[in-house]
Amino acid sequence: MAAKPSIPKGTRDFSPIEMAKRNYIFNTIRDVYHLYGFQQIETPAMETLSTLMGKYGEEGDKLLFKIQNSGDYFSGITDEELLSRNAARLASKFCEKGLRYDLTVPFARYVVMHRDEITFPFKRYQIQPVWRADRPQKGRYREFYQCDADVVGSDSLLNEVELMQIVDTVFSRFGVRVCIKINNRKILSGIAEIIGEADKIVDITVAIDKLDKIGLDNVNAELCEKGISEEAIAKLQPIILLSGTNAEKLETLKKVLAGSETGMKGVEESEFILGALEKMGLKNEIELDLTLARGLNYYTGAIFEVKALDVQIGSITGGGRYDNLTGVFGMSGVSGVGISFGADRIFDVLNQLDLYPREAVNGTELLFVNFGEKEAAYAMGMLTKVRAAGIRAELYPDASKMKKQMSYANAKRVPFVAIVGENEMNEGKATLKNMETGEQSLASVEEIIAALCRGE
Amino acid sequence: MAAKPSIPKGTRDFSPIEMAKRNYIFNTIRDVYHLYGFQQIETPAMETLSTLMGKYGEEGDKLLFKIQNSGDYFSGITDEELLSRNAARLASKFCEKGLRYDLTVPFARYVVMHRDEITFPFKRYQIQPVWRADRPQKGRYREFYQCDADVVGSDSLLNEVELMQIVDTVFSRFGVRVCIKINNRKILSGIAEIIGEADKIVDITVAIDKLDKIGLDNVNAELCEKGISEEAIAKLQPIILLSGTNAEKLETLKKVLAGSETGMKGVEESEFILGALEKMGLKNEIELDLTLARGLNYYTGAIFEVKALDVQIGSITGGGRYDNLTGVFGMSGVSGVGISFGADRIFDVLNQLDLYPREAVNGTELLFVNFGEKEAAYAMGMLTKVRAAGIRAELYPDASKMKKQMSYANAKRVPFVAIVGENEMNEGKATLKNMETGEQSLASVEEIIAALCRGE
Repeated sequence: MAAKPSIPKGTRDFSPIEMAKRNYIFNTIRDVYHLYGFQQIETPAMETLSTLMGKYGEEGDKLLFKIQNSGDYFSGITDEELLSRNAARLASKFCEKGLRYDLTVPFARYVVMHRDEITFPFKRYQIQPVWRADRPQKGRYREFYQCDADVVGSDSLLNEVELMQIVDTVFSRFGVRVCIKINNRKILSGIAEIIGEADKIVDITVAIDKLDKIGLDNVNAELCEKGISEEAIAKLQPIILLSGTNAEKLETLKKVLAGSETGMKGVEESEFILGALEKMGLKNEIELDLTLARGLNYYTGAIFEVKALDVQIGSITGGGRYDNLTGVFGMSGVSGVGISFGADRIFDVLNQLDLYPREAVNGTELLFVNFGEKEAAYAMGMLTKVRAAGIRAELYPDASKMKKQMSYANAKRVPFVAIVGENEMNEGKATLKNMETGEQSLASVEEIIAALCRGE
Repeated sequence: MAAKPSIPKGTRDFSPIEMAKRNYIFNTIRDVYHLYGFQQIETPAMETLSTLMGKYGEEGDKLLFKIQNSGDYFSGITDEELLSRNAARLASKFCEKGLRYDLTVPFARYVVMHRDEITFPFKRYQIQPVWRADRPQKGRYREFYQCDADVVGSDSLLNEVELMQIVDTVFSRFGVRVCIKINNRKILSGIAEIIGEADKIVDITVAIDKLDKIGLDNVNAELCEKGISEEAIAKLQPIILLSGTNAEKLETLKKVLAGSETGMKGVEESEFILGALEKMGLKNEIELDLTLARGLNYYTGAIFEVKALDVQIGSITGGGRYDNLTGVFGMSGVSGVGISFGADRIFDVLNQLDLYPREAVNGTELLFVNFGEKEAAYAMGMLTKVRAAGIRAELYPDASKMKKQMSYANAKRVPFVAIVGENEMNEGKATLKNMETGEQSLASVEEIIAALCRGE
């Protein structure tokens, strides 16, 4: 009974200060989503296994947390099956439900189930935890939050433009300098088409990505090693050496991809998105980057990724356009585009750059010291008025030693302390102490309220 | 593959409008918790089964959702054990983790694990879902949110006082009239002591509760049936007939319980709490109610419950003081007091009374109609300025038929629509339409911003 308790590996408790920081992140993202007309939904933690299985590949199926059926989960299973000890097959008999693995599949399921209530285009966001039975390691958890926004039921590129504006606004509000990278699946397909090596797209992007590090000759050698023909490599040269402004890159691509309808469509889409964003004036740089190939099997148009400029860390946000979100659930024709902010990495970035605004992380603004029953009763009266003014305030509940009460104030980083003793009570005031400067002065409750409102 | 998807029974999807309402509830509660110096924590959805098992009684153990171990969960189990098909015993071999059943046990576990980081008294709140494999029925779900606040590590009754102020403030902000009922376990123990029937406390409170409905004679008859002696019933008469103001009730109790130290302590505590609250001036009524016996095995001091006055529904908030929160995890001496708001019932109450403030539930405030690429580009420029002013606004992403775009505005309950066609572009303005009144006028972007800010 008395063994020291623990939590499952790969999971975390969030302390008050961590929660304050996380809430600052989620609230900032949420506010910007709202500004752009996105609406929140929530789906249950548990989905039926038939909803989840087969959606994340064979590896994904293994990483689903499965929930054992209640009651007699052995019924309907023969002795022979039991003794086969086939863990995977029997799991589907023991378990009908699993924990959600991402927010995309539940969203697709939601769209299909609620298609008659939804007005399309549907701009939805969702901020909820997901669970994966991954091997836990530094920075990888078995429970973590995703914060996704998607627009489904509209093919307009204005959605892509707005999502990039959202990314720009969110990171501006955080005070984090980022580079937004954009690519287009159709450009990559066009390249593959032109050089006649459709299946080598990933090899090509990986090699191009190394240009700065290993130089052109080595990139070409690597492409050759991967079995790409000399003729194709020759055609690839302008793309490997692609540089300059986004407009210059697009001009080069137009020449190279002239023979590919798909490729030209990708160029046109990118031109529209980048052009509109230039007109709006983003605060962060946006760069056409052909080496961006994330989720290549999933995305069908624009692909996005965000890198922090001042912290060494992987992508902190990503997304793209996809076709046929809901086809797997029998509803066709629903395409969409979405982004997902990586909350855990953003948390690390803001921590490293120390960018949490004080007022977002601070809790209690004023603590009344407790000297005993009479003083406490008096303080409670003041407290009611202070709180009515919207100031977060506490009375230390016990008449403990002053030192203990001050430690409490320090531990909670309370910026102001109010002291009410015999003298103060006689004057109808309190001594207000600024915990940072150490200054203190006798103040009425109105003066306290005014001082704290100024202090913000 | 194409079967219509569904969600596990007893679980729910929350639509945008439901989410807006739920967020209004959670945010109101959260704001008041902050005002009183409470800090948020979060714990993982999954806890080890050793943390959860044995904490909720035998019935509770059965209602835990258990998560099947990853990999080969059969290892270490003999054929004989398998063929025994003992679902409960084998569950503890197949599963090491379960979903949290409430927020109290994870909180106790948190306090023990983080005891060295926590500064006591610890005022924590937690708003997270919990899961129970209950038989689903109307109003009872297998996944639902709890929003708990507790103060641990302080015996001061000021904590009880503040929790009642929190309850009063939250329901005032909601605009819901409530009656706060308060009792004290020590008073109930005192009564049992005086009449010498310690184990009959529940029977007694149940019978007393029926006084209004069945009358004194029938109450006494019921007590007799339950095996309570005539002498005890005679002593109970002043308690059954207890009426008047809280002060009058306390006076009567002081006489009846004079012989019980525990009982008198309960009276004294209640007197302090009610006295302090009277001085603060609550907006809602508070009533000493001896029939309140919720969680009797758990609570050791004050017991609270809140009833809505204008809606027929069970208790919408409850709580009380308990001893030894963490003893089961080997850490003694941590007593506390807490409350829990019933979010689902509060949702129903606010729905029935139609009390959601418009601004809390509304999303997009302004929709730009899309007439085509040129007009959309123009609108995007205005949109950027409107959003920079903090107004939630959208441009319909496709140049669809006007009727479709207006249906979208109506479905999302957008109060203002901006129309930008040839004329408007020439004038550098937009036609602003108030969707409620139907009024429309030509307005510059500055005028639009001013109109929408006034509209709030």
